[in-house]
Amino acid sequence: MKMVFHYPNGSSYTASKQSTTAKQHHETIYGGRGMTLEDELNAANAYYLQIGRAVVHKKPTPIQIVKVDYPARSKAVIREGYFKTPSTTDYNGVYRGWYLDFEAKETKNKASFPLKNFHQHQIDHMRACLVQDGLCFVVMRFAVLHRLFVVPASMVIVAWDNQQNSRKSITLATIIDAGFELTPQLEPTVPYLDGVDWLIKKKVGASSGNKFERN
Amino acid sequence: MKMVFHYPNGSSYTASKQSTTAKQHHETIYGGRGMTLEDELNAANAYYLQIGRAVVHKKPTPIQIVKVDYPARSKAVIREGYFKTPSTTDYNGVYRGWYLDFEAKETKNKASFPLKNFHQHQIDHMRACLVQDGLCFVVMRFAVLHRLFVVPASMVIVAWDNQQNSRKSITLATIIDAGFELTPQLEPTVPYLDGVDWLIKKKVGASSGNKFERN
Repeated sequence: MKMVFHYPNGSSYTASKQSTTAKQHHETIYGGRGMTLEDELNAANAYYLQIGRAVVHKKPTPIQIVKVDYPARSKAVIREGYFKTPSTTDYNGVYRGWYLDFEAKETKNKASFPLKNFHQHQIDHMRACLVQDGLCFVVMRFAVLHRLFVVPASMVIVAWDNQQNSRKSITLATIIDAGFELTPQLEPTVPYLDGVDWLIKKKVGASSGNKFERN
Repeated sequence: MKMVFHYPNGSSYTASKQSTTAKQHHETIYGGRGMTLEDELNAANAYYLQIGRAVVHKKPTPIQIVKVDYPARSKAVIREGYFKTPSTTDYNGVYRGWYLDFEAKETKNKASFPLKNFHQHQIDHMRACLVQDGLCFVVMRFAVLHRLFVVPASMVIVAWDNQQNSRKSITLATIIDAGFELTPQLEPTVPYLDGVDWLIKKKVGASSGNKFERN
């Protein structure tokens, strides 16, 4: 335990360099300090893989390779390459017989999640996966609020399709109502499978389970 | 119809440049002339996506990016990058509620398929996906024989695990017996979902169907 001295007004002795204890407490609870949501999801996936709970990987960024050198006695070096636009979401895998497909998105906003965080190809891909009965969702973080949700893809798609006539963001209230709020843990810091269990319950209308245990 | 003149011995007039008509016939039937198995699978996936039958993509090759230039008024250029070893198979996606995961492999052998075509990470990944009730398989081509199979991953894993004590390849006879031979078509030239339907029948012991139609 680190001692922190407070002035009578409650501010910390070393306030100029440090967060308040309340803020520190928050950061401790919410884990993954200094990690991006992507880093935390990669760690969650590594953990889930290790304990045999799910097999989910982030897809590599597609690169158009134009020029490769093969230096003697060394491995191949890419000398000219370009980033390509992906045609899918970033994450997919399998969990108890279910196909999982999701995107991770973060905002600094406090009241709503802007749809400009999404791209047409992600919406198209999630729509196609839903038709095939995949479980599609977005892991959505409100960074400033330290709140994290699993939001069904269907909800994002509806908002996307209506954005010309309606608002260009999804309100936090809507997300609280129609999404699943994750409770951060020590490991994984982003326990998104809790949200997937909730999605499965909604879908099959029963206790979450492996599809093969349902008959 | 192109006229082909034959000498009395049956060899074609322009034999030095041309295949025999029989070979041409073969090439026509088996489609994808000059295309690699990967090209043909990418075309099959694009076709299946277009007709709304399945959503399957080849994963991009993972690249370790070391240096990127941002030329003024141009897009970012990767100037130093290295190929990383993937941790999964090359293809995955969703089909009627089922998680699909597979690798494509080709041999010029005629009597057996060498296990050295596989890598440990592919075996480990398929094993983990099977535990999660994914449908895992290998699309296997005997290039010289023009024969193409969907082979259950379980069969490859058993052969892999026994290769120290047993043979280091899977015989064609075993593959014919325990796999599903694909009948090439015009589109897609590699109709691998026929083999997936067969895998589903084997797994659920009933007519192939969407998992959600099973209750």
